[in-house]
Amino acid sequence: MLFKKAAVLVAGSWGTALASVLADKGIQVHMWTRNEQQMNEINTKHSNQRYLPDITLSPLITAFTDMKEALHEVEAVIIVAPSSAIREVSKQLKPYWHEDMLVVHATKGFETESMKRISTVISEELGCSEGHIVVLSGPSHAEEVVKKCPTTVVVASLEEAQARRAQDLFMNTYFRVYTNRDLVGVELAGALKNIIALGAGMSDGLGFGDNAKAALLTRGLAEITRIGVEMGANPLTFSGLAGIGDLVVTATSQHSRNWRAGSLLGQGKPLQEVLNSMGMVVEGIRTTKAARAISKKYGVQMPIATQIYHVLFEDMDTKTAVEALMGRDKKNEMEMMSQETYEQWHT
Amino acid sequence: MLFKKAAVLVAGSWGTALASVLADKGIQVHMWTRNEQQMNEINTKHSNQRYLPDITLSPLITAFTDMKEALHEVEAVIIVAPSSAIREVSKQLKPYWHEDMLVVHATKGFETESMKRISTVISEELGCSEGHIVVLSGPSHAEEVVKKCPTTVVVASLEEAQARRAQDLFMNTYFRVYTNRDLVGVELAGALKNIIALGAGMSDGLGFGDNAKAALLTRGLAEITRIGVEMGANPLTFSGLAGIGDLVVTATSQHSRNWRAGSLLGQGKPLQEVLNSMGMVVEGIRTTKAARAISKKYGVQMPIATQIYHVLFEDMDTKTAVEALMGRDKKNEMEMMSQETYEQWHT
Repeated sequence: MLFKKAAVLVAGSWGTALASVLADKGIQVHMWTRNEQQMNEINTKHSNQRYLPDITLSPLITAFTDMKEALHEVEAVIIVAPSSAIREVSKQLKPYWHEDMLVVHATKGFETESMKRISTVISEELGCSEGHIVVLSGPSHAEEVVKKCPTTVVVASLEEAQARRAQDLFMNTYFRVYTNRDLVGVELAGALKNIIALGAGMSDGLGFGDNAKAALLTRGLAEITRIGVEMGANPLTFSGLAGIGDLVVTATSQHSRNWRAGSLLGQGKPLQEVLNSMGMVVEGIRTTKAARAISKKYGVQMPIATQIYHVLFEDMDTKTAVEALMGRDKKNEMEMMSQETYEQWHT
Repeated sequence: MLFKKAAVLVAGSWGTALASVLADKGIQVHMWTRNEQQMNEINTKHSNQRYLPDITLSPLITAFTDMKEALHEVEAVIIVAPSSAIREVSKQLKPYWHEDMLVVHATKGFETESMKRISTVISEELGCSEGHIVVLSGPSHAEEVVKKCPTTVVVASLEEAQARRAQDLFMNTYFRVYTNRDLVGVELAGALKNIIALGAGMSDGLGFGDNAKAALLTRGLAEITRIGVEMGANPLTFSGLAGIGDLVVTATSQHSRNWRAGSLLGQGKPLQEVLNSMGMVVEGIRTTKAARAISKKYGVQMPIATQIYHVLFEDMDTKTAVEALMGRDKKNEMEMMSQETYEQWHT
C-alpha cells in the first residue's frame, strides 16, 4: 500500500524526525501540537528549533493545533507523546480514528500509576484490540535520522499485517525497518533500557571508565531480560535492535537524555537541578519508579533499577549506589542470567 | 588457596595490567619477555613505556628473558602472548610446567592456519587435558585496569575447580572475577567480537553515526552467537561479559586497537599503512581470516565477517562493504537470530 498522508502527535524531537522520514518519501505529514507558537514556527520557518536545532524541515510537513484538522484524510497516525500524555492524546484522537487507520507509537515508557504498557493504554482509549497497535523502537537518535544517517528500527505488532503496514510506511534508503511479532518484548526493552542508560551515565559522571560501564550494560541487559520474560516477552527480543541495539546507543552517546541526566547525577548535581537543566522529558526517571513496582509485583530482583531508585527518590549518593552494583561476592557469571535458562543448558 | 608467586608471559599491555592486579594483592610477579631492553626497563625504571605509557609498575613485578628463571617456584602462569606466538611460548613453557601449576590465558584469537582455539594449542603443547586450562576474558582496557578503575572479567574452564583457582588468584576490590563453565563460548566470543569491532570502527571512520554502529553491533552479536553455538558454545555466554560486555567496550572506545584500525580503514587508509601506524598486533585482522574459514567449514553465514574480509584482503572499499551490511530486503528481525531458536519460541 502507498501512503499519501499521515499524522504525527506530538512535535518533539523524535516525532519531528519520524515526520522527516515520511516527508522524504513524498508523504504529506500533519504534526499535531498543543503549542501555537511551535505550530507557527513549523509552518512559516520550517524549523523546530527547541527540539532539533538548525534543521530545515520539508515543506510537506505542516503543523496543527486542531486534532480534527490534523487527522483529516490521514491513513496512518504516529503517536510520539511523552508516556504521561499518552492517555490524554489517545482520548483526543479517538473521535477521528477509524479501523482502517494504521496506529504506530514510538513512546518508550509505562503509564506510571497503572504500570500499563503504552499500546495497552492506546487500545483502551481507542476501543480497539491491542493487535491493532504497532510499536516502533530501536537505536535511533533523532539528530542522526534528520541528517539521513543510516538507521535501523523494529516495528512490532501482535497482528503481523499491521507491522508490515508500518514497515511499508517508514522504510526508505537510510531508514531500515525490521518486523517482529513480540510487541510486549519490544515495548518492555525500549522502556526498561532507559533505566540502565541512567546508570551508565552515573558511572561515567563518576569517572569510573569504560570497563565499569560495559559491566553495567551487560548486567543491566540481563536484568531487564529477566523481568521481560516474566512479563511475557521473548528473550531474543532483548538481544535485538530494541534491546542491546538501543541500550548501546542510549548509554554511549551524548545525544541521549537518559545518559546525560545520569551523568549529571553522577557529577553530584541534585535531581531537581538536573531536570530543570534538561528542558525535555527524561523517560528513564519515570520508568525507574514503574520498574520498582513491577519488580515487586512479579517477584523478580532488579538490583540496578533498585539502586537507581535509591539515588533518584531516596537521596542515596551515586557513588554508594554504583559501588553497590559492582557487588561483593564471588559469583558464577550465569547467575546473572535466568536460572531456568541456565539449568536448561546444563542438564 | 593463597598465591605467592606467578609468572606472566609476555610483557604487552594486557599482560602488564594483569601483572599489576596481582602485585596489588601482594603477589610476586615474574614477567617473561624476549626483549632484553624491555626487561631492563621493567627492572630498573619500573615502567613499560611502549605498551602502557606513564605508568609506574609495582616493585613486586620483575622481568626475565630466561624462561627457567621466570618460572622458578611460581604457582600460576598467565599466558598473554599474541595468538601467533601461543604455540611457541607454550613449547618454551613446557619443561618448567607441572600439573599443580595453574594455567590461565588471556589471548583473544585463533591459531590462524589450524583455526584451533588458544586453550587447545596450549594443552597440546603442555601435554595436559584442556580442562586444565583457564581463559580470562571480558570488558577490560589495560589502560583502565592499571589505574584501578572498576573492572569485571570472566574466567572459564571445563574444570570448575581450575576456574575457581583463577578467581581466587585475580579477584580484588576493583577487579571482579566471575566464573563460567563455558570455556568454548568465552574463547569464541572474545576472539570473534574483534571482527565486529573492526566493522564498528569502519562505520565510525566513514562518519555513519551512532545509529548505524548500534545496528552493526546488534547484528554482529547475532552473527558471532550463531557460529559460536554451531561450534559448541552456550548462547548465553555471548550475552555475558565476554560477549556483549567486551563487544561494547571494544567497539565504542578509542583505547581499542581493533576499533582504531577499523576507523583508519574507514577513513580510506590502506591496510598496510594502518598496520604500520598501530605498532601493536591487531588480533581482529587475523581473526577475520580464521572466521572466513570457520564459516565455510560449519556452513554458517557470517555476512559481517565476509564483508570485512573483502575489505581487508580483497581491496573492497569500506563504504561499499558497510552499505552492503545495511542490507536491502525487508526482513523480520528474528531472521538475524538462529532459525532454530526462533521456531522453538513460536511453536
